[in-house]
Amino acid sequence: MKIDELIQTMHQETLDSLFILKPENITYVTGFKPTSASVLIIKEEPLLFSSKMDMEEAQQESCVPVVEFKSVDEVKKSLKETLHGKMGVEKSMSIGTYQKLGEDFQVELTDVIERFRVFKSKKEIQKIEGAIKIAEDSFKEMDFSDFSLSENNLAAQLEYNMRKAGSIKPSFETIMASGPRSSFPHASASSQKLESPLMIDWGAFYQNYASDITRTLIQNQKEEEILAIVLEAQKEAIKIMKPGVKASDVDEAARDVIKEYGYGECFIHSTGHGVGLEIHEKPSLSLKSDEKLEKGMVITVEPGIYLEGKFGIRVEDMVLIKNRAKVLTSIPRELSLNH
Amino acid sequence: MKIDELIQTMHQETLDSLFILKPENITYVTGFKPTSASVLIIKEEPLLFSSKMDMEEAQQESCVPVVEFKSVDEVKKSLKETLHGKMGVEKSMSIGTYQKLGEDFQVELTDVIERFRVFKSKKEIQKIEGAIKIAEDSFKEMDFSDFSLSENNLAAQLEYNMRKAGSIKPSFETIMASGPRSSFPHASASSQKLESPLMIDWGAFYQNYASDITRTLIQNQKEEEILAIVLEAQKEAIKIMKPGVKASDVDEAARDVIKEYGYGECFIHSTGHGVGLEIHEKPSLSLKSDEKLEKGMVITVEPGIYLEGKFGIRVEDMVLIKNRAKVLTSIPRELSLNH
Repeated sequence: MKIDELIQTMHQETLDSLFILKPENITYVTGFKPTSASVLIIKEEPLLFSSKMDMEEAQQESCVPVVEFKSVDEVKKSLKETLHGKMGVEKSMSIGTYQKLGEDFQVELTDVIERFRVFKSKKEIQKIEGAIKIAEDSFKEMDFSDFSLSENNLAAQLEYNMRKAGSIKPSFETIMASGPRSSFPHASASSQKLESPLMIDWGAFYQNYASDITRTLIQNQKEEEILAIVLEAQKEAIKIMKPGVKASDVDEAARDVIKEYGYGECFIHSTGHGVGLEIHEKPSLSLKSDEKLEKGMVITVEPGIYLEGKFGIRVEDMVLIKNRAKVLTSIPRELSLNH
Repeated sequence: MKIDELIQTMHQETLDSLFILKPENITYVTGFKPTSASVLIIKEEPLLFSSKMDMEEAQQESCVPVVEFKSVDEVKKSLKETLHGKMGVEKSMSIGTYQKLGEDFQVELTDVIERFRVFKSKKEIQKIEGAIKIAEDSFKEMDFSDFSLSENNLAAQLEYNMRKAGSIKPSFETIMASGPRSSFPHASASSQKLESPLMIDWGAFYQNYASDITRTLIQNQKEEEILAIVLEAQKEAIKIMKPGVKASDVDEAARDVIKEYGYGECFIHSTGHGVGLEIHEKPSLSLKSDEKLEKGMVITVEPGIYLEGKFGIRVEDMVLIKNRAKVLTSIPRELSLNH
C-alpha cells in the first residue's frame, strides 16, 4: 500500500501516529509477514520493531526501516520523546497492552488499516487468484471414488496437494464432512469412512493471501433437490451484487430463496464474508451488517441448508466486485460422488 | 478440569464470575472446542453460549449447559440480572469487548484459568504423548535421501503423514529450512531444494493438545561441531530442571554452555516454553521470566546456534516436570543427511 495515503487518512482523523500489532496489518503495510511479536509504528517516518529472530528476513522484505523489538515497554520508552498527540490502536489489541500504552500516550481505537484492506489492488487480486488456483487444481487431482477411505485420508490428500503446489498452510481447518456429519457446518475431518453427501470446505494461502471454497458431492435425489435450492439461492445473491448494494440485502436475497422452499430455519449462518490476508474480513454478508458493497471487494457467497441428523449441503464461491460480481472460482458446482 | 476448584479460586480472588472468550480456555473447562464465537460464563451455574453452527456438537461434548450465542450484547442483557460483583476477564480480551462489558459490569483482568492450565493432569499428559507419538512416527516415515526434493515437498509429506495419523492440523507452520535458510530460526518451507543442514521444527495436534519437536540433520564436520555444542547446552538445561528451579536459571544453563564456546550472540531466542492446548504456554524459559518450575509442567527445551548467512542448528525436545525432568520425546538427536 501507499503509506502516504494512510498517513493522510490518519491525519484527517486527527491521529498523529498508529501503533500496529496485528500481523496481517503489518504485512499489508510493510510487505513483511512477522513470525513473532512485532510492532509497526506509523508516523512521518514509519518504523518496524521486529524480533531478533525475524530481523534478517524483515530487513530483506520490509519497505519500512527495521529495528529490534525487545518489549512493549522498550518500544514505549524509545517513542516517548518523538510521539505526541493521539495514537491510533487496533480494536483487536488486548486490554493489557492497551492499558500499558494508555499510561504514556493518548490512545484511540481505529480500524483505518482494515478500511484500506477492504479494497483489493490489482496485485492483491492476482495473489488471491493464485490462492484459488492452488485450491482448485489440488481439488481436481482428488479421487473421491474409494469409499474405503476416511475423511481424514481425503483431507490429508487435499492438503498435501495444496502444500506441494506452494500453499504454506491451509487457509483454515479443512472441512471434510461425510454423511450425517455434513449437517455440522464446521465439522473438521474425522476417521469416518466416506459416505454421501461429502461436504468439502477448503482453501490455500498463496503469498499471504487466502482462498475459501466449498463443494458438496452428492449421490441421491433428495440431496440433488437440496443442492438445487442452495444453488438457486447462491445465484440470486450473486445476481444482485454490485457497488452500492447493501450487504444485508445480499444475505436476504439468498435467504429468501431458501425460505420459499421451507428451509429458512436450516440456513444457520450468514451468506458470506470478505477474504484477503485473513480468511474472514469485511464486509460481512449478514442481516446485521450495515456495510455496502464497493468495487474491489473480494467476498465469498456460501448459502447452505443443514438438516439436523440427516445431512447438509453448502456451496461457496468467491466473487470480486467490479461493475457487477465477477465469480473468481471456476470448478463445477454440481458434482456427484458416483464417479 | 474440576469446575468447583476453579470457582473456589475465583472466590478467593473476590471474583464473582468469569467471562471467558479464549477457545483454549473454553476447551479446558468444558471439553468442547468451539469453531466460532462463543462465551463461557463461570458462576455457580456455569453456562456456555455457543453459535448456532456449533450447537449440536457443543451439546454433545460440553460438560456445561449450552445456550445459543447471538452477540456480546445479547449475552450482557441475559446476564445483567443474575450477575453481580466483580467479573473476571482474560488479558487477551480485545479493548472493544472490554469497554462494552465495562458499561454494565465491574470488570477485572485475571489469568486464573491459565494458572490451572500450567499443571497437566494425567489425562492431559496422555493426550500430549499422543501428539508426540503422531509427530515422531510421521517423522520416522520420512525419506530425506532424495536431494531433488524441495523443502515444500518434504513439509507436505511430513504434514500428510501426521494428518493421516489423526492430527487435525500441524500445531504450527512446519519449519523445513535447508542450507543457509536454516539460519532463520522461523523459516517456513520454500521451493528450495534439499541441502545440508536441514532444520525441521514440527508438531501435531491430538485431541486438542500439541507437540513441538526440532531436529537438524547434518552432513559435515563443522555442522557436527555446532550440533555437539547445542546438545551439550540442552543436556545442561535438562539436568537442572526440577520443581522449584527458576525458569530463568534453566535458560541461563543452556546459554552459558553456548557462550563458553563463543557463540553467545548466535543463540537469539529463549530456551523453551510450555506446551498444552496452545503451542506456546507458560512457563517461558527465558532470562526475563520470573516463573519457577513445578510438577506437572510440560516444557520444550530448544537451544540453537544461528550463523548468519551460513547455517543454523537447533534441537528441541519436550519434558515433563516430575521429581526431575522426564524427557517425553524419543527420536535420536544426532541425525545425518547421508543415509
